This record gives sequence, structure tokens and C-alpha cells, in this order.
Amino acid sequence: MDFVFDATTEELRARLTAFMDECVYPAEEEFERQSAESGWSPPPLLEDLKEEARRRGLWNLFLPGEHGAGLTNLQYAPLAEIMGRSPRIAPAATNCAAPDTGNMELLAMFGAEWQRRTWLEPLLSGEIRSAFAMTEPDVASSDATNIATSIVRDGDEYVINGRKWFASGAMNPRCAIFIVMGRTSEDGSPHRRQSMVLVPRDTPGLTVRRGMRVFGYTDADHGGHAELLFEDVRVPAGNLIGEEGGGFAIAQARLGPGRIHHCMRLIGMAERAVELTCARALRRTTFGTPLARQGVVQDWIAEARVRIEQLRLLVLKTAWLMDTAGNRGAHTEIQAIKIATPREVEWILDKAVQVHGAGGVSQDFPLAGLWAAARSLRLADGPDEVHKRSLAYRELKKHMPAE
Amino acid sequence: MDFVFDATTEELRARLTAFMDECVYPAEEEFERQSAESGWSPPPLLEDLKEEARRRGLWNLFLPGEHGAGLTNLQYAPLAEIMGRSPRIAPAATNCAAPDTGNMELLAMFGAEWQRRTWLEPLLSGEIRSAFAMTEPDVASSDATNIATSIVRDGDEYVINGRKWFASGAMNPRCAIFIVMGRTSEDGSPHRRQSMVLVPRDTPGLTVRRGMRVFGYTDADHGGHAELLFEDVRVPAGNLIGEEGGGFAIAQARLGPGRIHHCMRLIGMAERAVELTCARALRRTTFGTPLARQGVVQDWIAEARVRIEQLRLLVLKTAWLMDTAGNRGAHTEIQAIKIATPREVEWILDKAVQVHGAGGVSQDFPLAGLWAAARSLRLADGPDEVHKRSLAYRELKKHMPAE
Amino acid sequence: MDFVFDATTEELRARLTAFMDECVYPAEEEFERQSAESGWSPPPLLEDLKEEARRRGLWNLFLPGEHGAGLTNLQYAPLAEIMGRSPRIAPAATNCAAPDTGNMELLAMFGAEWQRRTWLEPLLSGEIRSAFAMTEPDVASSDATNIATSIVRDGDEYVINGRKWFASGAMNPRCAIFIVMGRTSEDGSPHRRQSMVLVPRDTPGLTVRRGMRVFGYTDADHGGHAELLFEDVRVPAGNLIGEEGGGFAIAQARLGPGRIHHCMRLIGMAERAVELTCARALRRTTFGTPLARQGVVQDWIAEARVRIEQLRLLVLKTAWLMDTAGNRGAHTEIQAIKIATPREVEWILDKAVQVHGAGGVSQDFPLAGLWAAARSLRLADGPDEVHKRSLAYRELKKHMPAE
Amino acid sequence: MDFVFDATTEELRARLTAFMDECVYPAEEEFERQSAESGWSPPPLLEDLKEEARRRGLWNLFLPGEHGAGLTNLQYAPLAEIMGRSPRIAPAATNCAAPDTGNMELLAMFGAEWQRRTWLEPLLSGEIRSAFAMTEPDVASSDATNIATSIVRDGDEYVINGRKWFASGAMNPRCAIFIVMGRTSEDGSPHRRQSMVLVPRDTPGLTVRRGMRVFGYTDADHGGHAELLFEDVRVPAGNLIGEEGGGFAIAQARLGPGRIHHCMRLIGMAERAVELTCARALRRTTFGTPLARQGVVQDWIAEARVRIEQLRLLVLKTAWLMDTAGNRGAHTEIQAIKIATPREVEWILDKAVQVHGAGGVSQDFPLAGLWAAARSLRLADGPDEVHKRSLAYRELKKHMPAE
Repeated sequence: MDFVFDATTEELRARLTAFMDECVYPAEEEFERQSAESGWSPPPLLEDLKEEARRRGLWNLFLPGEHGAGLTNLQYAPLAEIMGRSPRIAPAATNCAAPDTGNMELLAMFGAEWQRRTWLEPLLSGEIRSAFAMTEPDVASSDATNIATSIVRDGDEYVINGRKWFASGAMNPRCAIFIVMGRTSEDGSPHRRQSMVLVPRDTPGLTVRRGMRVFGYTDADHGGHAELLFEDVRVPAGNLIGEEGGGFAIAQARLGPGRIHHCMRLIGMAERAVELTCARALRRTTFGTPLARQGVVQDWIAEARVRIEQLRLLVLKTAWLMDTAGNRGAHTEIQAIKIATPREVEWILDKAVQVHGAGGVSQDFPLAGLWAAARSLRLADGPDEVHKRSLAYRELKKHMPAE
Repeated sequence: MDFVFDATTEELRARLTAFMDECVYPAEEEFERQSAESGWSPPPLLEDLKEEARRRGLWNLFLPGEHGAGLTNLQYAPLAEIMGRSPRIAPAATNCAAPDTGNMELLAMFGAEWQRRTWLEPLLSGEIRSAFAMTEPDVASSDATNIATSIVRDGDEYVINGRKWFASGAMNPRCAIFIVMGRTSEDGSPHRRQSMVLVPRDTPGLTVRRGMRVFGYTDADHGGHAELLFEDVRVPAGNLIGEEGGGFAIAQARLGPGRIHHCMRLIGMAERAVELTCARALRRTTFGTPLARQGVVQDWIAEARVRIEQLRLLVLKTAWLMDTAGNRGAHTEIQAIKIATPREVEWILDKAVQVHGAGGVSQDFPLAGLWAAARSLRLADGPDEVHKRSLAYRELKKHMPAE
Repeated sequence: MDFVFDATTEELRARLTAFMDECVYPAEEEFERQSAESGWSPPPLLEDLKEEARRRGLWNLFLPGEHGAGLTNLQYAPLAEIMGRSPRIAPAATNCAAPDTGNMELLAMFGAEWQRRTWLEPLLSGEIRSAFAMTEPDVASSDATNIATSIVRDGDEYVINGRKWFASGAMNPRCAIFIVMGRTSEDGSPHRRQSMVLVPRDTPGLTVRRGMRVFGYTDADHGGHAELLFEDVRVPAGNLIGEEGGGFAIAQARLGPGRIHHCMRLIGMAERAVELTCARALRRTTFGTPLARQGVVQDWIAEARVRIEQLRLLVLKTAWLMDTAGNRGAHTEIQAIKIATPREVEWILDKAVQVHGAGGVSQDFPLAGLWAAARSLRLADGPDEVHKRSLAYRELKKHMPAE
Repeated sequence: MDFVFDATTEELRARLTAFMDECVYPAEEEFERQSAESGWSPPPLLEDLKEEARRRGLWNLFLPGEHGAGLTNLQYAPLAEIMGRSPRIAPAATNCAAPDTGNMELLAMFGAEWQRRTWLEPLLSGEIRSAFAMTEPDVASSDATNIATSIVRDGDEYVINGRKWFASGAMNPRCAIFIVMGRTSEDGSPHRRQSMVLVPRDTPGLTVRRGMRVFGYTDADHGGHAELLFEDVRVPAGNLIGEEGGGFAIAQARLGPGRIHHCMRLIGMAERAVELTCARALRRTTFGTPLARQGVVQDWIAEARVRIEQLRLLVLKTAWLMDTAGNRGAHTEIQAIKIATPREVEWILDKAVQVHGAGGVSQDFPLAGLWAAARSLRLADGPDEVHKRSLAYRELKKHMPAE
């Protein structure tokens, strides 16, 4: 057991940190300005940053195997943390932003050769973006067996009908392809009734209805969260990803890495919040005393440090376990980080907001926006309560008398 | 000691509830629709509702004395709770919305006769709106002695220079008058250096710069939260409210009722959230079980009830104490409700969001917006921590050895 | 609605406070000394205090109706709070200590004339003490239908078999009578199968086995918490309280007032803890600063005040509701105070312990003992979770569609 | 970075687990029985277990270097966790119990040759026990500069006067030697005024006054927590440990390993509590449902798992850091585990108690006792608040502008 990153990781951390210091942080202010005017598209300066990241060899770091940088989860985790320090820019600039990351992985693992050529390649090169349409407004989608959108085979085609929402990224006009989860069967095992199909944006019958808000935010700079309407949408049968009935399994495979990426970025966000908090506390004075000398503020700062250290180690161990025992072998740990990280980071951000006063809730600091991101991750990919129930069940099972 | 509302209160509660049922709740959906298109002005339907409220004798209920409905705090408190159930509409429809309420009270108490005629009257009739400019971006404004905006006497005029923000309501073009707090002196007792002046919106040198966001929300329907720039803004000396050096005392007098109104409305918001939560939990099914039968959801619902009951009683007692012992005599209780209510209601709203899944964070339910309102009240009128420190000091003082 | 105690209450509060100041607090130190040597009996000085309390007209204050002081719940509540400030002495000294209070109420309400003469009278005069044997080690007793002790009619007698524990007070040799809850039937409605019988201490077959600990405490000074074994214990059929099958209903009737008494005393304990905390914080210095000036300690003190004020009001309202709407009408409120009070007071005591350092966990301050009392009330009379489930069910029911 | 224990550790874990399964757990019931009768001495069966542990090579595992098993902190940590599963027996049986461990380390590091021969050797062989007398009743001892006990040089002797308490282990008659911290100087740097001396138990003037309680517990089986009175106690000058003025530095050196041992054992306690909780939840039924299927109980179990995983990793990393960067290099992490572990384990134990109902607070399950141990560790070696303040200060320092 040791706690040292390997040489590859350290080299990439240094390279990525330099990119952050030289390119990303200095662009943040302008990013916000452009963002306010660029509608549902990302601010133009992002393209320059993508170019630069690519030039520096900081591209597709998230993707294991031949198609990407080939890093392990344990190697990627600390890099994702660094990106999380400027989460609206860095992941996008390095082509490591959700939901494209999960979609690329999915296509790399399950996509047919022509699917990879047609959709994975332009995603890998950053030309287009993609969306993942799973959640539905009308059912509790954390239970995938509730999914109601129908995907019906009709000759050489699939016909899709249903309503989805919170398809992140889909408001971005450059989002060219949607991966859609739906029911292809009403019979058989409840976890074999779902399938996934590729639906290009311009397919007739598909309406991108509106952007959903997250605590008032449109998240327009990364393409928002769309409500989608599918009315007799027809795609060729070859647009099926993997096999019919394989949708649930693919979704599960997609979620493991997605969750850990979210958690690592959250930790980066927390570190950023601590920095901002300390800087503010040292600068701001009330009733004759700098905030940094108020016991309650000190308590928050210490708590933040104590919590971050624990979270990071659990995420790193989870990454290591995914690398060595597979996603299934890391099931408990993946759930544990999904439960612990968003809520603890939410707590840290809440305190950071408080230290910043009215500024904290406003657009002048990134804190309120980061808070909303952390808060919504207590729901995304299944609410905490679903994960806890499942985790508890496995814990109890250890103690059940053998039959 | 008894816990029954008096006849006047009960009659008004019934009348207000009828107004809510017949006019306010049915208008909510259309309000949101109009709101999305009405820029910084309130949705047009509000004017009809104001007319109707007035017709029903539900107008200026907040204001004690001859200028208003003449209710005590204890009589008004349960009415404010009912309004809080639809907080974007009901307070505005009944001319009981912040910050006008506080501003009207202030003018009724401290305004010169001409000030009352010129500004209080159109406010009371709902023709114009007003803003209160106290908080500044550059200093910790919870410590009023930090206020840096200068108000300098120059002959028959005062000249104002400084920057304010979070002047709620000021983005609304109908917001005609600003009450501005600033420093009129650099000497003497630290709490006698501030004064308040009336600054009409169109005064040269005053720039309404931009609307501040609250967790992504513009709060445009009630006029947003403006950043204001004062550059050599000149007003007649007669625009001074009360006496020079009296700003701090006036601010204190304004805050007591303001805080209790916020708290009562928050309780109404919490009740609404519980209703929405129960309805959703009964309707929504995951893993074969309605949410209403999940132990954790039941726990949240029970907690919400337990917390609301406590909060309401403390707010009512505080109202009674303000009526019988004055705002000063209710100092501890006012601080106590200011500490307890926003955070507990925030907790209830957070759980309501969680029960609503992705919908909970979106614009399709009022919950995320209410959450942001509750959250920002942990900062508005002084962050919790400042109130706690002051409350603790008084508690400790009881046990200090007499000298 | 008003928040003033009536004249009777104020007079008794003053009288009781004088008794506390003149007799109870000064006796605390000696009480602990005697307590360490008096085995399972209360310290001898208690008899003198009882005499004195009686002389001062502070006797059986808890008991409504002709047998007691005839106070309402609302009148008694603030007196119980005052007693709670010295909870090991004051309730016992005034003959207002659990479980005798509940047992006396039960006998007053449901006892036959000879039962009242034989057992209620010596209890009212403080000559003997009593115990209530309901909880069983082998089943989850919060669900009364689980109760397994059998009470079988055999001719003119009842025969009792079973095991009970946490029969508070029963280790005290002066505890002369046990009220025992058991099953008299295996058929019929699950809530009509239980009955209560009176079992004198010296009945053959009844063994008082041992005193149960509560976090290391024996609670010997008020008679401990006994484990009892019933082996073919025979009592005359006339020892039945009320009617056969009425046990559950009697238990429910007993619990309402019992819970509110506990809650009021807890509030007194919390007030005492705040006093001790303030005194200590003002006296003790670390790193050059009195604890009273540490922000975190101030935060705790403010929190304690904010929480106590809310709890007290809810308990008072519950008392008023019991007086005006009956125990059934106050069901939600009784559960609410049972949920909220022990845990909040536990929190306050925990912080008081922390401020007292190592002394706080020791026998040199009452805090750790009070903490254990508060903590065990999160379990006694049903764990919080059972109450929350039931409360949530009633809340949800309001929103269920009518059939 | 990897998360696998080395071969030595794995071998010792297996050996220790076998010892627990074969010898320790089976002895627990009898241990409690003997404990109730053995006064301030440990139960007699402990000697047999010590013999057996020694025979199995499970002896002095805590001690690095030549005098002990020579393990690193990282190797010892998981062994201490296993011992913590039966914390009243396993540490004592393997001669790894506090405070002897810290005292042995201290003597190994700072003791003169004769001191090691006279006191360290019999401690290493388990013949005698020792105590550490630092905390004082009259001052806030977390600030070592407050220590008031005087140690005055008088010719060839030191004369000690003062009062100590919570000298753990000192009530045990076999506790032969006390390490006493006191002031040897009133001048110079505040952290150079303290020294440590060895005081044999039978030294005239030393009175072992009484055992302090911890939430009612005497902790008699491991020698209690003594109050000690030093009245003109004279020891030879050679009894000084290290150099005069070195007391503070020695205390600091002693505390690092002590804290991590406590934390590892706490994690073992938490694991034991989870096991007991699961077993109970599967067995116990209320209202027709096993507790294991109650959502709130599942929530607690999941929380416990999530928290334990995080704590363990942070403790292991801290151990690794102490091994590789020294105790000073691990300062932040040592404080972090000291803050996080007791409170989280306390939370887990609280929930375990709740699941066990009245049994949970009693002597029939180990939970209440473990809770008291965890709770008091929020105070021992400095209250959480002191550690948080210090940790926050270092965090803030990173962001202070260089001068």
C-alpha cells in the first residue's frame, strides 16, 4: 500500500496544472462574458482552448484503450480533479466533458464499427457533441424498469415515441447525435426490456423542446439540459447499439466511470471553494476582525479540509478497484462515492457561499453555480436514497444466515 | 396563555384563503408564462390581482396604524404565512411585498409630511414601487459601520457617491424611489455616522447597472436585485429621512418587522412544500413501492411537520412580544427566528426537491426557486453567524458577575 | 392568542423556584455523596425535602382532579420545567417523579375503589413507590402487540409468566407495587389482547433480577431499572386494572401525560446546561482567550437558546391542546415533542459536556448523567423512528384522495 | 499508488484474526462476569490471554524498533483495527493497550538506559502497567502552557505539587509507575517550561484519590481514570525524562502515534457495531416488518459503510505519511483523523444503540460502552475544536500573502 501517484500521472498533473494556470484560469472572466451572449452555444474562446489543450497532449484523457489517452481510472482521477477546479471550461477544453465522455466510452465499448466511424470519431476530435437521453419526466427514472419511451421495430427501422428530459448538452446546436434509451419489449426479464439507439439530431419527429433549468441556471455554456419529444421518430435498425434488450447493461457500464469522473471533478470544485474561502476570509473584515479569525469560519475551513481528504482517498481507491477488480468489483465503492461526494462538496460550497455574503449567491463568484451542480448530482444517475438502499442491502446480505 | 387567533385574524385568514384559492393558485401557471416574457417588469396579470385583492379588503395588511390595515404583528403573522404559500404572487398582489413593506413602514414612521405625501401615498396605492439600497459589494455590510457610500452635505443638497448592490426591486422600471443609506460623518459614535436619503430613480448620476443573480435566478418578476452606481448624485437636503446620523437607528427599526414577515412567509413556503411532497410521494412509484411508503421519505415528512410547528410558534410568540414589549424587547426572539426559520425551511425544501427528482431542481416546480429564496435569507439582513454571535453575547451577559 | 402564564401558574412558579433555591440546589452535593452509599435506595435527605415540599404546598402538582393539585397540563408544564433543572431531586421531592406519576394517574383514572385505597393513597402520600413493567427484552416492545408476557385467568386468579426489563424504580426496596402489562388473549383485535394487573412486590414467583444500566449509570437513587422474572406468579382476579383486553388503551392513556412531563423536565435540564456552559465559558481560558469569546462556543450557546425557545413553545402548546382537545386531539403534537425534545436537549448537553472538557464526562458535573437521561428518552416510550412513521402517515393521509 | 497490504501485514492480520476468533470473542462474556467482581484490577482471565497472545507472536505489535515487533505504522494500523473489535480485551491481551503503549514508546525514545531497564522492560513483558498524568482539573489542559503542577528542583531531587485527573490505568494496583508532566520553570519560551518525571506509585506524598467516571462507567477493567494528588512528592533528579524543559516536545511526540492507534481501534469498534446492527436488524420485527427492511435502518447501515470506508483510508494514509514523512509531516492528517474518527464512529454507535432499543443503552450489549469511549475521544488529547482551529490556521496560512 502506498499513496504516491505514478510517474505518468505526475507528469500529466504537472502538464495539466500548467495549462490551467496559463490558459484556463486567465480565461474565466472572458468566458463568463462571452457566455452571457452566446445563447445555447459555448463561448467562442473554447475552440482556442481546445486547440491548445490538444497541442499540449491534454486530450481525451478520460478514455482508456486505443481510442483515447489510454490511462487507467487511477491515473485519470487526479487529472479530473484538476479539471474540476474550473469545471465549466477545463473538461470541455480537454474533450473530457460529460456527457460526451460517457457517450464516447459507450461507443468505444459497444458501438458497431460504422457507428464508431460515424459518431465516435468526430466526438473524439471534438467536432461534434452528443447527448444521452434516458431520464423521463413522467416516471421515476432511477428505476430503469420504469422507462416508458417505446422503441418498436418496424421492418428495417425502429420507431421511437416518448418524452425525455434533462438530456444534457442537447440544446447546443453542435450536439449532433443522441443516444436514446427506451423499451423494446414488454416481456421477459425486467432488465432485458430496454435498448439503446442512435438518433441523429435532424431526424424527423424529434423535437428539442426547451432547456430545463437547474436552480435557475440554464447551463447554456455546455449545451443546457433539453426536454426532447419523440413522435414516430424513425431510425434504421442498424442504429441499435449492441443488442436488443442490452440497454440496461450498457447503461450500467456507462454509469460507473461517469460517476467517478463526477466525483473527482467535485473534489476539484471543493478545493477551489476552499481557496476562495480562505482568500476571502483573509481579506474581509467585520466588527473589527478579519473573517479568518472568526472561530466559526475556521471551523468550516477545517471541516472542509477533513472532508476533502477523506473523499479524495475513497475516490482514488474506487478508481484503483475499478482498474483491478472491474466496475462490478467496485460496486459498493462506486455507490459510496456517489453518496458521499456530492453532499459533502455541497456542504463545503454552502459555507463558501456564506463567507462570500451576498456575492456568494450571485454571478460574481462561481460558488452558487458550483453549488447547483453539486446539488443536482445528489439526484443525477439516481438519487442518494436509491444508492443507499442498494448498498445497505449488500451490507445486510453479508450477515444473512446461509440457507 | 392560549393558542387561538382572535376573531379579526380568523376572518381575515378565511378571506385571504378564499382569495388564494379563487385567484392566486389558479394564476400561478400563467404568471410563470408571462414572467418568462415580461423582462424586468412583473407579469401583467398582477395588476388584475391587485385590483381584486383591494376589492376584497386584502390590501396593505402589513401596515399598522392609520396608513394601513392597522393590524398587530400577531394578527398579520398568520396572514403573511398564507401569502408565503405563493410567494411570487400573493404578497405583491396584496401590496405586502418586500422591500416596499419595509420602505412604507419607514416612511410612515420617519418620513416628513411631504415625503409621505410624495412617496408613501403612491406606494400605499400600489402605483409605484421602491428599493432599499444598503448592502455594498466592497464591504461586509452586515456590520453597518462598514458602509462606505458617502453622503456629503453641500449647501442645500446632499451629494452621494458609492456603489450598492442587491437593491431588490430596483430593476423594475416602476421602481420610482430609492432609500439610500450612507455615511454623513467620519466622526463621532460609529452608529451615528450614517444617514438615509431619498433618491428618485431619474436623478442624474445614478446608474442602475445590472441585475444580480441569486443561484441563477434573476427574480425579474419582482424587480430583481440591482447593482447601483452613485456618481456625484445630488438630492435636495430635504430628502434626508429623519435626522442626520439617524440612519443606523432607522435601519434597525426597519429590520425587525421585515425579518418577521420573511419568516412567516417562509413557513407558508414550507407548508406548500410539504403539500407538494406528500402529493408527489403518494403518486410516484419506484421499485414497486410508492415513495410515500419509503421509510426515508416518511422520515422527511415527519421532520418537516415537527420543525414547522416549532418555527410557527416561535414566530407567533415573537410577533406577540413585538406587540407587547416592542421591537427592542423582542430582540432575542427576532434573532432566533431569523436564525432558525430560513435554515429549517431550506432543509424542508431540499427534501421536497429530492422527492421530486430532476423535476425538483427545474422550473416545472416552484421548489428550487423557493429554496434559493430561503437560502439567500440566511444571508440577507445579516448572515446567521452575526445574529448568533450577538444572541450568544446576550446569553452570556446574564451570567457575567456584576461589577 | 397570548403567551402569559395565568396567576395560579405564576404563583406556583415563584413558590417552586424558592424551594429550588432554598432547598434543592443547596442539597445537590450532599445528595450525590449519600447517593454513592445508599445502594438501591434514595439518599436519606430526600425524606426531609419531601416533608418540606409538602409543607410548602408543592406536592402532587402533576395530578389533575381531586386526588392531586388539580392543575391543567398547561399549568403544570412550566413547573415540571423548573423541577427538571435538578431532575434527580426535585421531581422526587415533590412526589412528581416518573414512573409514579404515570402510575398514580392510571390508578386515579382506571383503578377500582379498593385499588385506589390500597395503592393510590400511599403513593399519593409518598409512603411507597411503584413500577411499570411493560418493556420486554425478547421483543420490540414499541409495538405493543409484540408483548409476550402471558396473564392467564385461572379460577379467581391470574397467572403471570414472562420476563420484563427496564422497570424503572423497581430496584428500590420501597417500590411496593408493580403494574404489569401482558397478554390475556391470543384472539381478537390485536389491540384488545393485552391487560394490566397489579402485582405486589412480595408475590411468590416474582424475582427482581438485576438493575439494568443506562450508559454506565445504575440510576440507583431513583430505584434503577429492573429486570423482572415472572414464574407462575398468581394474583387475585380483582387485581386486574380496568377490564380485560383494556391494557393497550390504558397504556396509551398513560403515555400522553408521561411524555409531556419528560419533555418539560428535559427543557429544564437544557436550561441548567446552558447556565453551566455560560458560567464555565466565562471562567475558563485556553490559548489566552476565555472560552466565552471563542466563536464556536458562542455558536453553541446561541443554538441552545434558539432550540430551547422553540421546544418550550411546542410543549406548552401541546399541553394546552391536551387540556382543550384531549390527548387524542393532541396526538400529532405529543409525537412531535417526543421526537424533537430529547434529541435537541441531547445536542445541547453534548455541547455543554464539550465545554466542560474531561470534567464534562465525569461525575463532577451533572452533564454526562443528564445526557444519558436525554439519550435514553429517544428510546423510551417508543423510539423516535416509530413516532415519525406514525406522524408521517397522518400527514400523508391529509393528501390522500378521498375514496 | 495501490491499496494492498504487504505480506507481513496480511500474515499478521490472519494470525490476529484467528486469535480473536479462537480466544478473544469467546472470552467476552466471561470477561464481563469477572469484571463485575474484580474491582479495579483486570479480570483474571486476561493473564491467560496474554500468555496465549505472546505464544502466538502477537505481542507489543505497536512498538517500532528493536524493543517491539518492529512494524511500521502502516503495518500496525490494520492490526489495531482488528483489536478494536473487542477493545476491552484484545489490546490488553496483546500488550498493545493505552496508555502503556504511549508510555513505552516514550521510554524507548527518551528514557535513560536505567529508566528503560527499570520501567520499560517490565512494561514490555506485561508485568506492570503505567499511567500518564498530564490533564489537570483546574486548567484547560488542551493548552499545555496552562499546566500548573509544579516540579521544582531541590538538590538531587525534584519536588512535585499539584493535582491531576483522568490518569488512565492508575486505579489498577499493578500500575507501578506514573509519568508526570509539570512546570519546571516560570520563565522562557512557554513551550520550554514543562518537564516530565517518573514517579513510582509508592512514592510518599502521592495519593491516588478516586476513579473518575466516563458517562457512568468506571472503566475498572483497564484500571479506571484516577484523580491524583501530589503533595511534596520527592523523586531523585535522575527520574527526569529527557531534558528539563523538554516536556512539551515529548508530549507532542507521544501524541501522534497514540492518536492514530485510537482511531484505528475506533474503526474496528465501528465495524463491530455494524455487524451487531445488521444481525439485530435481520432478527427483530416491529409492526410486521423486520427492522432490516425499514428504510431508515437501511439508511443508517449504508451511511455507516460509507463513513467507515472513508475514515479507514484516511487513517491508513496518515500512517503511511508518518512512516514516510515523519509525525511532523503528517500533522494535518493526524489532526484530521482525530477530528473525524471519534465523531463519525460515535454516530455509528448511536444508530447501533437505537436499533438495539433499550438493550442498546444497557450492559447486555457492548454498544453503550463503546459509545462512551468514542465520545470521550472527542475530548481526550485535546477537544476537536482545538484541533480544528489549528488545522484551519495552517490551511489559511497557505493563502496568506508572503510578506
